[in-house]
Amino acid sequence: MTAKLTVGYIGLGLMGKPIARNILNTGFPLVVHNRSRAAVDELVALGAKKAYSPKEVAAQVDIVFTNLPDSPDVELAALGPDGIFEGAHEGLIFVDNSTIKPASARHIAEKLGEVGVTCLDAPVSGGDIGAQKGTLAIMVGGPADALEKALPVFDAIGKSITHVGESGAGQVAKCANQIMVAAQMVAMGELIVFAQKAGADPQKVVQAIQGGAAQCWTLDVKPERLFAGNRQPGFKAHMQDKDLGIVMETARKYGIPLPTTAVNTQLFDAMLEMGMGDLDNSAVIGVLESLANSQLVVD
Amino acid sequence: MTAKLTVGYIGLGLMGKPIARNILNTGFPLVVHNRSRAAVDELVALGAKKAYSPKEVAAQVDIVFTNLPDSPDVELAALGPDGIFEGAHEGLIFVDNSTIKPASARHIAEKLGEVGVTCLDAPVSGGDIGAQKGTLAIMVGGPADALEKALPVFDAIGKSITHVGESGAGQVAKCANQIMVAAQMVAMGELIVFAQKAGADPQKVVQAIQGGAAQCWTLDVKPERLFAGNRQPGFKAHMQDKDLGIVMETARKYGIPLPTTAVNTQLFDAMLEMGMGDLDNSAVIGVLESLANSQLVVD
Repeated sequence: MTAKLTVGYIGLGLMGKPIARNILNTGFPLVVHNRSRAAVDELVALGAKKAYSPKEVAAQVDIVFTNLPDSPDVELAALGPDGIFEGAHEGLIFVDNSTIKPASARHIAEKLGEVGVTCLDAPVSGGDIGAQKGTLAIMVGGPADALEKALPVFDAIGKSITHVGESGAGQVAKCANQIMVAAQMVAMGELIVFAQKAGADPQKVVQAIQGGAAQCWTLDVKPERLFAGNRQPGFKAHMQDKDLGIVMETARKYGIPLPTTAVNTQLFDAMLEMGMGDLDNSAVIGVLESLANSQLVVD
Repeated sequence: MTAKLTVGYIGLGLMGKPIARNILNTGFPLVVHNRSRAAVDELVALGAKKAYSPKEVAAQVDIVFTNLPDSPDVELAALGPDGIFEGAHEGLIFVDNSTIKPASARHIAEKLGEVGVTCLDAPVSGGDIGAQKGTLAIMVGGPADALEKALPVFDAIGKSITHVGESGAGQVAKCANQIMVAAQMVAMGELIVFAQKAGADPQKVVQAIQGGAAQCWTLDVKPERLFAGNRQPGFKAHMQDKDLGIVMETARKYGIPLPTTAVNTQLFDAMLEMGMGDLDNSAVIGVLESLANSQLVVD
């Protein structure tokens, strides 16, 4: 790659804004668009160029990124009026950092393919801290040669970039990630409530088990915050719940019974109904406390 | 502690035999008993003294250990005919390395307390490999001063010894451990079957997620064996299922709803019914494959 890639970034939210900033700071010419304009102005002040639609971004860049809340938002930006489809040109690469349905990612890749655009679904994990530090884990689906071209930009935003397969495979990997994360969050809640009600000290129990076969990032990081009475995000429960919705819908589509994830999804659904959607995903323990008529004793 | 403690070990199975050997090799005079005598002869050849009942062991040692399959076995050895109760003497310490019901551990501690015996419930985690290497994690419930006296022997068999509370608390911690381990085993199975059926490469998916928020010992160690077609234990599924039975019975006793562990217990129950009880606990993926009419492609 001799000439510098020109990059577009659409969706400057909690995740998108710091990612876009890292792309800009690494030296790539950047064009940005966002529904709310304050974030656009912020990036423009740092040297980015502003645009007023996904079409307008796509028309003037080599690689266009999106980072939007859910599948319909990405489909609209990609294929809707004034969307990327309308601003497409031969050789354009489209990268979606959102977490959306694998089937949506495949549909978008097929449609944009018709106008010469190559698509990578590239959901991330690592939260807003990872986005700010440029240390995200990125799971990539789509053609390997497109990933190779986009790699200098990926390197600016993530520390672990894994090509997991064809279009949609990145989203499948993100689903797999959320299956395990939800299982650990719920199991942590169950075991802490269990320990307390069955007459042991939950903090000592966690300490006793976190170095053995139960070891996980969740048990390494989250109990300390829970025991201090801190249930603030981190990763918001309503985002976890949205991602689990994608998992379960995809499971139905492909005929994959997921008994434990089905239960975990229900518990996150309940968490939202109980008004705890803006808390951390580890705060799902609140649903279990409610079921057990119990409350975690905090330090 | 100036005089060398004399130790007794009852139950020389997959876990008990290597633990007893480590105690003997560390230099403690050891008296052993086991229903099947071959293991007794083996330890005697290494320098142990044999006995013919728990009572006979208890009568001549400072600390007596048990390591038996389930709650009724330990209750029988502790409180039954020719049991530890009958051989008890003031100052004797009873340590149970088995995984049994917290309520059983508390009952035994109360009864043996009446004849001057102090009890520690001290279930272990780390498997037969940990038992052989003397690197077990030991979760201890019971009086702190008894643990202090027994500590030189614990040091001979484990690398992490955590005092989690009063009688029964060690068993509660073991339950907590099994809640998390079962959740991870089932979630790993679900995510691998999901990845394959939804059109991604399961090995690449595991690689993409094992360094992030989903990180756990289970994902670090088990997928490699599954992808190589190896479902041999490790930790046998019927032991995992037995431990989950203890968890669920204890949960009912103390009024603790455990929605995700209930489902995971059912899946391990199904695994046993399907004839897979002697396989590794990670082989619970077989139940999910069956539900999804899918089979993991192995290398």
